Amino acid sequence: MIRKLEQFRTWMQRMNADAFILPCSDPHLSEYIPERWKSLQWMSGFTGSAGNGIITQDFAGLWTDSRYFIQAERQIVPNGFQLMKLKVQGQPEYLHWLAEQLPTGSTVGIVGDTFSYTLYRLAQNILGVRQINIRFFGDIWEEIWTDRPAFPEAVVWEYELKYAGESRQEKITRIKQAVKMQGCDAHLLSTLDDIAWLLNIRGNDIAYNTFFLSYLLLKELETIFFINETKVPASLQQQLKNDNIQLRPYQDITTCLAALPAGTTLLADERKVSAGLMQALPKEVIVKNAVNPAILLKAIKNATELKQFKRIMLLDGISLTKFYYWLEQNTGHVKMTESSLVQKLHEFRSQHQEFITESFSSIVSYKENAALNHYSPVPGADLEISGKGLLLIDSGGHYCGGTTDTTRTIAIGEISQEEKDDYTLVLKGFIALSSARFPEGTVAASLDVLARAPLWQYGAQYMHGTGHGVGACLSVHEGPQYFGSGANAVPGTTMQENMVTTIEPGIYHAGKYGVRTENVVYSLKETNTEALNFLHFEALTLCYIETAILNTALMNNTEITWLNNYHQSVFKQLATGLNEKEREWLRYKTKPLHLKTSYSVPVI
Amino acid sequence: MIRKLEQFRTWMQRMNADAFILPCSDPHLSEYIPERWKSLQWMSGFTGSAGNGIITQDFAGLWTDSRYFIQAERQIVPNGFQLMKLKVQGQPEYLHWLAEQLPTGSTVGIVGDTFSYTLYRLAQNILGVRQINIRFFGDIWEEIWTDRPAFPEAVVWEYELKYAGESRQEKITRIKQAVKMQGCDAHLLSTLDDIAWLLNIRGNDIAYNTFFLSYLLLKELETIFFINETKVPASLQQQLKNDNIQLRPYQDITTCLAALPAGTTLLADERKVSAGLMQALPKEVIVKNAVNPAILLKAIKNATELKQFKRIMLLDGISLTKFYYWLEQNTGHVKMTESSLVQKLHEFRSQHQEFITESFSSIVSYKENAALNHYSPVPGADLEISGKGLLLIDSGGHYCGGTTDTTRTIAIGEISQEEKDDYTLVLKGFIALSSARFPEGTVAASLDVLARAPLWQYGAQYMHGTGHGVGACLSVHEGPQYFGSGANAVPGTTMQENMVTTIEPGIYHAGKYGVRTENVVYSLKETNTEALNFLHFEALTLCYIETAILNTALMNNTEITWLNNYHQSVFKQLATGLNEKEREWLRYKTKPLHLKTSYSVPVI
Repeated sequence: MIRKLEQFRTWMQRMNADAFILPCSDPHLSEYIPERWKSLQWMSGFTGSAGNGIITQDFAGLWTDSRYFIQAERQIVPNGFQLMKLKVQGQPEYLHWLAEQLPTGSTVGIVGDTFSYTLYRLAQNILGVRQINIRFFGDIWEEIWTDRPAFPEAVVWEYELKYAGESRQEKITRIKQAVKMQGCDAHLLSTLDDIAWLLNIRGNDIAYNTFFLSYLLLKELETIFFINETKVPASLQQQLKNDNIQLRPYQDITTCLAALPAGTTLLADERKVSAGLMQALPKEVIVKNAVNPAILLKAIKNATELKQFKRIMLLDGISLTKFYYWLEQNTGHVKMTESSLVQKLHEFRSQHQEFITESFSSIVSYKENAALNHYSPVPGADLEISGKGLLLIDSGGHYCGGTTDTTRTIAIGEISQEEKDDYTLVLKGFIALSSARFPEGTVAASLDVLARAPLWQYGAQYMHGTGHGVGACLSVHEGPQYFGSGANAVPGTTMQENMVTTIEPGIYHAGKYGVRTENVVYSLKETNTEALNFLHFEALTLCYIETAILNTALMNNTEITWLNNYHQSVFKQLATGLNEKEREWLRYKTKPLHLKTSYSVPVI
Repeated sequence: MIRKLEQFRTWMQRMNADAFILPCSDPHLSEYIPERWKSLQWMSGFTGSAGNGIITQDFAGLWTDSRYFIQAERQIVPNGFQLMKLKVQGQPEYLHWLAEQLPTGSTVGIVGDTFSYTLYRLAQNILGVRQINIRFFGDIWEEIWTDRPAFPEAVVWEYELKYAGESRQEKITRIKQAVKMQGCDAHLLSTLDDIAWLLNIRGNDIAYNTFFLSYLLLKELETIFFINETKVPASLQQQLKNDNIQLRPYQDITTCLAALPAGTTLLADERKVSAGLMQALPKEVIVKNAVNPAILLKAIKNATELKQFKRIMLLDGISLTKFYYWLEQNTGHVKMTESSLVQKLHEFRSQHQEFITESFSSIVSYKENAALNHYSPVPGADLEISGKGLLLIDSGGHYCGGTTDTTRTIAIGEISQEEKDDYTLVLKGFIALSSARFPEGTVAASLDVLARAPLWQYGAQYMHGTGHGVGACLSVHEGPQYFGSGANAVPGTTMQENMVTTIEPGIYHAGKYGVRTENVVYSLKETNTEALNFLHFEALTLCYIETAILNTALMNNTEITWLNNYHQSVFKQLATGLNEKEREWLRYKTKPLHLKTSYSVPVI
């Protein structure tokens, strides 16, 4: 397999590149990337979602974070790569390595359309002080990667108004107003979720996603949609035409940007547009680097979107209930593995017509596997569900109407007191944020500690964010709001009415077990406070939370009441979608917990 | 009084300045400024702590925030100024006003040593795009302000090692190491609290502060202290000499900076050094703009400082207890006003030899006055303490050994249920943060919401930070840690062991009443958690919290237990410093509250 590396080095010599950077990204800097752009995986064998490769004539290394150390080591060494452990997740430490290792005057090659402009500028700064040059390359993989997957050409489909709640003309009008308000006369959109939202179109170009490769250029009087025509059904083409949206081939974006008239002020998010595209702009075009207006507009769901979210959460909840019922009935009788449960979950979800695809690779993780970040079971290399332990299942789906993301932890057999206590602490953190009330305009990131505080009281902590925005049949990880500090987050984002977000604290003990509980919630106005505009959350996810393994001694009445009310709502809404056995089982699972009655006594 | 303004305009014409900016600051950009630099107050009459004046030939305006709207209007209009209401506190909106109002080519005058370099750069950006020039002036007030207060020349004194816990040589060595670590070979300190801390010296140049006007220039082999020699007692001069610290006149800083050799890399915090000083640097000096290393070192108190803090908190607690006892005994019998109570508090604190001065202008605010931010009673214009209502008292002192800052709210006569409920909510927030446990390294600002969440649950909010760092006989508002986002805060500061901070939530109803409860606490390591390094707080402030006006129905056992434990500690530590009547009164005031006993019952 090292042959790939050797051939690449020969190619580099021919191109006079002393080093080459291989990122994990596509021309849209997507979170999930199409197979066609997984060149780092093809070259190094690394299948993780976050990594950067560096190749020189005598070195090949892959920088990734602690989540992937074990997996990366195993995957890349046979391919001639060595593991470079990131000290801080997401930091471009490989650029500093280049600055230190390469002699002055060296040339570093990059594929310009897989680097964000912000990252490219950073690379220029870091390498520039050492007089190391960056050279842009086009799509080199066409030449080098012989069995490269084809350009994704899945046919797109209209996301009907009954799901979207707002027409594309209305959305485009709002965006153009926002662009004008920022003193700009054009706007380049390269982010696939923003384009899908704005045009009310969905596609199938990337696994676990509803996106389609395209660009959108908005001018005051024109809207140009760059997508290969063959992907767009004739009826949709007609509708787009009716809406004054021009279709142009995907590849034309570069020439079209190059032809922008001098003096144009272009709004573009430099973190989200590739360096390759930005280089195509004439020097006389003024770029205003700002967050895409679509990000905030898209995050605030309209009434139709919320209604649809509730409808599909019901479907997802029915699937999950049937799944957990089946699981409990068959544990010990039917052979199960983590992978077979992923398949089983898929079967239950697939029973609904509205189900499109999983919204991410389902995590079914038993015992110590649940303590691994980003674990997805691989058939043959996974655990069998037998004996006793905690089973963590984190999964979700895209539906016509919304996107789901639910985590529950259940017990197989008898579990330890430590496991029960941790399970209870996670639920306490989960309820603390789920039942929070807070002023509209509170910085989203600041709510993060509300879920942590109950865990902190017992000396527990988790090293991931507490929650992320969720798209309406769009990204399962959607900005700008985030409870913590995440990649899609826009720092300083404040909480507004009708944002859809997850709440998902956890506790992990490496080599032993993991616990996480997660709901999707939305924010809505208080009706009973006078002075200020307060928000609270209401759960969208409908799925029972196992009570048999709670240590209720750690819980107070406020928490118990929240759980009882949630369970009452879950049962009420799901009951009619279940058969009688399932319904009775769910009735039992959602039975209210005893409250503690209290009276005052003097201290002795 | 408009004569001053007219004379200034004549002077501006002579100087060809189309506009002039008058800030509220001194050459050290201090929080509290010496009388000599209160030129804005002299010109406009405004006595608030935050404001900026702009004078042109046909306009004179003062920009300040909502805290000061009523007061400013009253004070400045007779002096020919108009109130310009800030939309966002602390924002330089007056610069945008200048950019919009002045014609291209205009000249704006500033006194260079009362502008931070950061603010000057921002002004250059905002005004530069409109081709408006900024012209530096020297200390123009010598010429214009006839009865200007003299340069402060109070004699300084040594802050002995038994208080400081670390010698100035040791501190200087640590700072010089930090400067070197950042790749610099010199460091300019202009912040008065950093200099006082570093040199173990205190002074009396500014009301409510222990500072002395000076600069410090640290080079690898030299330490130069710029202060007028007459302020330094002979014995201290000798000690400084022994410690290899050179004394030079205060004014020499400019020539000394101008003489720095080319190629010097100077560490300086551009937010904290004046534009005037920065301009004095030769072009060949490279400035590294970074937070002063002293800020973090000073924030982490050593064992001696903490011991001293505890000792002087005892003194302060005895004064406060005697004061509140006296207050309760004499209410209704002796005529009291807000101002007379300020004086009475001063008398009780002054009984301790170690007491130096109040650490800020004491706030004694009755009824609706307590809802005003930054209220300080003025004799004759204050309220008499009679009838019924809530009385909020926020005060503190500098002592040899530390600085205090305590707020308590008590009731005069019978108060309403709403007042009791709000008082209880504030206490709930106060206890929530006081009893929090959190991982070492948690971002300080993120803890802010822990105090807010209990108030939020009941629809209450407060529009100020939850807590600020406190100096050891230094600034009562000391960075870098802050619970919220404050002026002295360094964003991203993490919580470390032995930081001293306040916790002070509140609730305010404009025109009606205000409640705030405040302790000074320090952070220390948990001993009973295994996996992670956790911190918690321990109260340094020793003063009872009124329980008679609590609505205990809103409290849970965790909160009641915290309060009982705190009260037990308060009584135990203060008892011996009180006379018998005071002691018995405090015993009653700190009597434990009844706990609620609970048992589980099924839900009906």
